Amino acid sequence: MAPSLLSRLSQEHDLVLKTFRLLIADLCQQFNGGHPGGAIGMAAIGIALWRYVMRYAPHTPSYFNRDRFVLSNGHTCLFQYTFLHLTGYRAMTLDQLKSYHSARPDALCPGHPEIEHEGIEVTTGPLGQGVANAVGLAMATKHLGAEYNRPGYEVVNNHTWCMIGDACLQEGVALEAISLAGHWKLNNLTIMYDNNQITCDGSVDMTNTEDVNAKMRACGWDVIDIEDGCFDVAGITQALEKARKSTEKPTFINVRTIIGLGSKAAGSAVAHGAAFGAEDVKNMKRAYGFDPDQSFVIGDEVREFFRDIPERGEARVREWEALVDRYAAQYPELAAEFRSRVRGELPSNWRDLIPTSFPDKSTATRASSGLVFNPIAKEIKSFVVGTADLAPSVNMTWPGKVDFQHPSLKPTSGPRGAYNGRFVHYGVREHAMASISNGLAAFNHGTIIPVTSSFFMFYLYAAPAVRMGALQRLQCIHHATHDSIGMGEDGPTHQPIEIAALYRAMPNLLYIRPGDSEETAGAWTAAVQEREGPTIVSTSRHAVLQLKTTRREGVLRGAYVLQEAEDAQVTLIGVGAELSFALDVARELGGRGVRARVVSFPCWRLFERQERGYKREVLRRHEGIPAVVIEPYAPNGWERYADAAVCVTTFGHSLPGKAAYEFFGFDLDSLTGKVVKYLGDLEEDGLLRHEFMQL
Amino acid sequence: MAPSLLSRLSQEHDLVLKTFRLLIADLCQQFNGGHPGGAIGMAAIGIALWRYVMRYAPHTPSYFNRDRFVLSNGHTCLFQYTFLHLTGYRAMTLDQLKSYHSARPDALCPGHPEIEHEGIEVTTGPLGQGVANAVGLAMATKHLGAEYNRPGYEVVNNHTWCMIGDACLQEGVALEAISLAGHWKLNNLTIMYDNNQITCDGSVDMTNTEDVNAKMRACGWDVIDIEDGCFDVAGITQALEKARKSTEKPTFINVRTIIGLGSKAAGSAVAHGAAFGAEDVKNMKRAYGFDPDQSFVIGDEVREFFRDIPERGEARVREWEALVDRYAAQYPELAAEFRSRVRGELPSNWRDLIPTSFPDKSTATRASSGLVFNPIAKEIKSFVVGTADLAPSVNMTWPGKVDFQHPSLKPTSGPRGAYNGRFVHYGVREHAMASISNGLAAFNHGTIIPVTSSFFMFYLYAAPAVRMGALQRLQCIHHATHDSIGMGEDGPTHQPIEIAALYRAMPNLLYIRPGDSEETAGAWTAAVQEREGPTIVSTSRHAVLQLKTTRREGVLRGAYVLQEAEDAQVTLIGVGAELSFALDVARELGGRGVRARVVSFPCWRLFERQERGYKREVLRRHEGIPAVVIEPYAPNGWERYADAAVCVTTFGHSLPGKAAYEFFGFDLDSLTGKVVKYLGDLEEDGLLRHEFMQL
Repeated sequence: MAPSLLSRLSQEHDLVLKTFRLLIADLCQQFNGGHPGGAIGMAAIGIALWRYVMRYAPHTPSYFNRDRFVLSNGHTCLFQYTFLHLTGYRAMTLDQLKSYHSARPDALCPGHPEIEHEGIEVTTGPLGQGVANAVGLAMATKHLGAEYNRPGYEVVNNHTWCMIGDACLQEGVALEAISLAGHWKLNNLTIMYDNNQITCDGSVDMTNTEDVNAKMRACGWDVIDIEDGCFDVAGITQALEKARKSTEKPTFINVRTIIGLGSKAAGSAVAHGAAFGAEDVKNMKRAYGFDPDQSFVIGDEVREFFRDIPERGEARVREWEALVDRYAAQYPELAAEFRSRVRGELPSNWRDLIPTSFPDKSTATRASSGLVFNPIAKEIKSFVVGTADLAPSVNMTWPGKVDFQHPSLKPTSGPRGAYNGRFVHYGVREHAMASISNGLAAFNHGTIIPVTSSFFMFYLYAAPAVRMGALQRLQCIHHATHDSIGMGEDGPTHQPIEIAALYRAMPNLLYIRPGDSEETAGAWTAAVQEREGPTIVSTSRHAVLQLKTTRREGVLRGAYVLQEAEDAQVTLIGVGAELSFALDVARELGGRGVRARVVSFPCWRLFERQERGYKREVLRRHEGIPAVVIEPYAPNGWERYADAAVCVTTFGHSLPGKAAYEFFGFDLDSLTGKVVKYLGDLEEDGLLRHEFMQL
Repeated sequence: MAPSLLSRLSQEHDLVLKTFRLLIADLCQQFNGGHPGGAIGMAAIGIALWRYVMRYAPHTPSYFNRDRFVLSNGHTCLFQYTFLHLTGYRAMTLDQLKSYHSARPDALCPGHPEIEHEGIEVTTGPLGQGVANAVGLAMATKHLGAEYNRPGYEVVNNHTWCMIGDACLQEGVALEAISLAGHWKLNNLTIMYDNNQITCDGSVDMTNTEDVNAKMRACGWDVIDIEDGCFDVAGITQALEKARKSTEKPTFINVRTIIGLGSKAAGSAVAHGAAFGAEDVKNMKRAYGFDPDQSFVIGDEVREFFRDIPERGEARVREWEALVDRYAAQYPELAAEFRSRVRGELPSNWRDLIPTSFPDKSTATRASSGLVFNPIAKEIKSFVVGTADLAPSVNMTWPGKVDFQHPSLKPTSGPRGAYNGRFVHYGVREHAMASISNGLAAFNHGTIIPVTSSFFMFYLYAAPAVRMGALQRLQCIHHATHDSIGMGEDGPTHQPIEIAALYRAMPNLLYIRPGDSEETAGAWTAAVQEREGPTIVSTSRHAVLQLKTTRREGVLRGAYVLQEAEDAQVTLIGVGAELSFALDVARELGGRGVRARVVSFPCWRLFERQERGYKREVLRRHEGIPAVVIEPYAPNGWERYADAAVCVTTFGHSLPGKAAYEFFGFDLDSLTGKVVKYLGDLEEDGLLRHEFMQL
């Protein structure tokens, strides 16, 4: 838009700004809560974005090539909700808009934006992660564009706009992602920084006095300053348009704003997280020339200002669909594949790519993961596989893999990459890896299935992002290697004693510990077919035996009987890297006249999905057979399935794997002795059946 | 040291460098594993540091005013171990040095440095955290110096040296901490960056192409470049000495090195995490003029080179002790306090500062925390209390508190601070907050007890650091507010459904949910008296009733009977913010003729420390009384203490607190109905006793 036209519109903007700001004040005032200040400060940015720059279609919210908008400072959600309403998103009626902070369970205006709702691209709220999500969304565009665009047919070329506050620039996950976006030269990504210099505690200079523009430039970003971010819609619009045209770098737009502008609390932390009070809201209305006794006023001029947006959006959708039709005529096979990806489909043959059997030799399950999954990754373009600098350890590379890199990059070591590459080196940035992967997955349901990989311990760094993936039911597959104390010498800092307790408790997530290659096939099958949620495939560093009776179908049911026994006196539950221990102990017990059955139990959540009958059949605790689980983790939660555990309740110890197992009593003699003693104790004191025993 | 002298020493340095590098190669080769490359590349830095610059005392390793050294790239631990040996730390014999990667359970050379061992300041390994630990150590010096130094008596003025690799500059936690160190102008902190441009996956430019020096300058650091970091001991020494003298800023020394210098793998990722192979090690020895068939050779000249270090250290200790003696003569009271702090003592009256009773009105337990702890924080200087930008929410400020800030800072809002301030605004940097706090605690056992505060959910961001605090048994107290779904409108992104599962499983850590002010008094009492480990005090956002029968002593035992019942038919377990629900349900059940007893259960780990007799008496499950726990969390682990749970197994929902409780069935009617139905089901099908029921 020409600058002259924009400035002629400034009166109109003035009215829209006032209307918007009063709406926010009213929406918070009605329930006397919420976060008004940021949304009010960002009003002019919103007008520039939703009215002039962003390409989207309110009546076709899932239009594939739409620009993506991420509100990383998710507590300012009213900013987004209100623009969704003004620009004509059908679900966001004024009535719904007013549901913010109400007790309506069906409200579309939760305290932070949630992906389920129309016009919301990702769920945000835990600060910083939105930035990484936006990097993932921008990557998705670059990746799909490189794969599917042809000269004259830019079927994927959207832009990603990320709104952030001061806090997002303090969080490590954002800083990691910013560094990567600069490295990858994601020129289709723009951060709009609501620089109001206020956080909850007060002025930002209490905690941050760095030169943010210089820092962003050092990270490979272009920087544009906007001095009057509260009113200069024209200046912001020009900056956004310049950002969209950037050819080399992502753009950081540093917009000076005033939090809670117009209220008494303006410019102070008080404006951040509390309503202004009825009197102050009235005063704002008076000052703006509005009726102080009317609320939620949206005048006709304001309605008019946004009126043509849905239709412009629909025209855009039709244009894109026509483009894809012409593309399909020119490149029929490519277009068929593209359309299948747009529908989020996986080629139906993916299961056939998994080996039906494996060499009968000891294999680390991290290596089994490679045997199982790399053929899928190689063939099926939906998978974008990354690692947080542990490529040599996690076995996730396939022959001929191409790295996702800007094509101009000539790394000192290794081959050049390209944007259509599907292997991502994230560097040592676990949190950003998982959070960017959420963005890749959120681009469009099922179009990209991101896979991450690292040591299991470092999924604690990534945990906030893994959680957000689970909350959003995004299919991300995390390959977590070096689980259990068997990982050895790296010691307690790397031995994930208690990390599984978190992931087993996390809703919507499958945490699976396979025990050999066959079970690893089951684990990856479960992960790939779990289209509505993330999976952690948790594998061993060290080689484990191939067991005869393991079954991938058993893994899909969470737990299954590996070895039944007549008149069993005890059930041994084996898990993952230590599954063979359970079989060995059962054999040894047999030699001592104790009849033991063995259950393999790779995944709690899959087991919980089974019918009660199956569960009883597997565990047989209702028959009074005590169950002992063998796993060198904190036992929390095993109490549901077992009466006792050989477990680890301290942190680990730096020793070679086998020695570490022995140190903690995970050798055949100790294990057998503990089970025998437990059964004896039970016989002596029946009351122990009421208590979970750590052996 | 004069430059001329240093260059005359270059021949000597050459021999030490070769000896050191071959030692590292041999130490890895003996067990064919480990991380040789980084340690070898950093050899010259080590000589500059341990021989010329660092102030320490190998024979008095815990000398209070010693310089602190942190190896953030902990996998290069052989670097540190070998210098500990060469400089005369008594525990680190050559025999012990050789225990690296051995199966000796008593080895002093675990795969990453561990705080328990002589000469190790903090346990490192999970990358990036060492940087934050070092920031905490440097803060401790500034803080204690500001509090206790007097003109002519600098009783605390040590320097902190932090060694990092390329990876540490990628991790978010380090980036957060770097920003804070610049903000606080910690001129007593130096980062030595082993810039070898190699990580596991290959060259750093595959994942990081930013201008690191410019980024550090933007964050408020001085930058010094060293071009020839492999050999230029003189140049590095001068840089380190300049860094120590810095008056305004922390210093970042960018040292170009070559990983695995001298081996065939030099300069490549192969040198990072694998031994070089016997033949390559022999070739290195030949090239260096050493006997290829001899290993672990440390010649007399090399021994001589380091010989006087222990004695110089002892002289330094004597000098400091004499200084403190003179200081004590001049400032007897201050010195007495200082010496008490050095011994890590708490004033014996701390318990008396806790109110003995509380106003009988509904109070959020986050506010109760303030009532209980702020009087202690105000009086007792050991406590350094911080928040990740949630000061208005966490209630941890006391009248007259002074912020920890550089005295020159004039923040736009709020008063000026000082280095002797004890309230820390960390900004929105939860991970750095916890990791810096570990550094504060590690400075000297008990001298500083850091307290952090944020919403419970954001302790997932901080989890890797909370874990390292637990692993090191550092006393850090974390005040985690807004626990449970009762926190309301912020919604599922902020409702910590499954986070307690992690912390209840984490060894050495107390996770305590108090149910009212009286129990909050118990929780903080437990936290303060837990001198060998961290505590999370987990509190509510919303007001809860003051209950009549709660007892702080009960909290100290983890669980206790709140309300006994004759011939009880069910035990209701109440927890934290929902404790009153259990009492209400018991009353309601009574009205329906069901006799219910009530147990308050704020902390699993404290309960586990009790005798079996006490545990049985509290739970009475051995009498066949079924127990039902009421807590809106994932129930994982409650199976140990209960037969059934009214719990939450999905993510939360954005609703006002009361509505959120009702949405998930946590209202009197639903709760009572569920318990009644469960008891009925049990009567009908006894087998259910073998299964944990989610009601």
